[in-house]
Amino acid sequence: MLRIDFISAVPGLLNSPIEYSIVGRAREKNLVDIHVHDLRDYSADKHRKIDDYPYGGGAGMVLSPQPIFDCIERLTGERHYDEIIFTAPDGELFEQRHANELSIKQNLIILCGHYKGVDQRVRDKLITREFSIGDVVLSGGELPALMMADAIIRLLPGVLGDAESALSDSFQDDLLDAPIYTRPADFRGLQVPDVLLSGDHKRIENWRSDTAKERTKQKRPDLYNIFKKKN
Amino acid sequence: MLRIDFISAVPGLLNSPIEYSIVGRAREKNLVDIHVHDLRDYSADKHRKIDDYPYGGGAGMVLSPQPIFDCIERLTGERHYDEIIFTAPDGELFEQRHANELSIKQNLIILCGHYKGVDQRVRDKLITREFSIGDVVLSGGELPALMMADAIIRLLPGVLGDAESALSDSFQDDLLDAPIYTRPADFRGLQVPDVLLSGDHKRIENWRSDTAKERTKQKRPDLYNIFKKKN
Repeated sequence: MLRIDFISAVPGLLNSPIEYSIVGRAREKNLVDIHVHDLRDYSADKHRKIDDYPYGGGAGMVLSPQPIFDCIERLTGERHYDEIIFTAPDGELFEQRHANELSIKQNLIILCGHYKGVDQRVRDKLITREFSIGDVVLSGGELPALMMADAIIRLLPGVLGDAESALSDSFQDDLLDAPIYTRPADFRGLQVPDVLLSGDHKRIENWRSDTAKERTKQKRPDLYNIFKKKN
Repeated sequence: MLRIDFISAVPGLLNSPIEYSIVGRAREKNLVDIHVHDLRDYSADKHRKIDDYPYGGGAGMVLSPQPIFDCIERLTGERHYDEIIFTAPDGELFEQRHANELSIKQNLIILCGHYKGVDQRVRDKLITREFSIGDVVLSGGELPALMMADAIIRLLPGVLGDAESALSDSFQDDLLDAPIYTRPADFRGLQVPDVLLSGDHKRIENWRSDTAKERTKQKRPDLYNIFKKKN
């Protein structure tokens, strides 16, 4: 079973996202084992301090090396970890292929960045992978860490029911999804496209494939070029 | 004061992220007004059903139009909304400039995608902006919605203290940050670079600028090219 250890300066922020939805259900079914570590619990300081001013001056507080080294070394002393991940704005862009790759691992640590950042010695000595979720400035790495976990956990065998099949998702085949509709066929005068009501599976499949290609070409020419090269 | 209305099929997932950290503090200081709406509360179905099978077959459930139309129309009947945002994998990539732009608005709705997606008529008729956080498949739009809100809220006047100045962050100046260090200067034999201990502000500034450029050039040549064009 995949084990994920989150290390955070704001562990309470993770409470509800790991209780609800896919992640919550995967935990209930014992398909994933999630642990959340409060960085303050590992501080050697009597006031449980975990941050300090940056050397050389400047705005913002920096996460100190000691609590992080102690937390990670305690965990790695207990079991082997495949990756020790840090959420950093200058990390590698997290993409679906990373979720695929990490979903077949055994044990992962995700250290959530916070404040202005983390002492560089942590990154140099402990961290094996650094991921960013894009060029957006956030107040902490907790939400990116949760996003990565969600993307990974939904790929674990047994997590998604048949009705939710991960295989038909956007990006798994380099194309965006076709538009989707559900009942009623007429909602306040807004109609579902006739083809979807036709019962003609071949026609429906063609329509979906055509609109998916058209949508991808229009909205994401970069993805469309990858798709064209492969097909 | 900025008001954000989240609409979600899993509203409980949002509980802790809007209570903790920057978003929690901004709410305490009355700098942002956050409301979470449970889609089920708007369902006309006696079992509070909010989803249904996709027309034309296929895996996954689709969010029905009725509860979403009713929820959004009730909100827009009460006040003017600047944007009605939907978190969609095929939306525009959410970047820092969008956070900047949205942080000066008055009222925003963020509809979180879920299950397989949402009936296309919702997107065609109600939604004014569609944002994606990247090419990753998630089980819902709640985490992306929270990420956008975090990026927006931290830019609101008064939310960040002086010590946290948003201006010195990664991406605001098209460069990644220089490495940062805090005490102790010697941690288990790992040293802080001498220059940061020198007290020579001009030398420190130059070192930071040089390492920031070097790091950006190495890790993010795309950003570095933008920086070079501007400077």
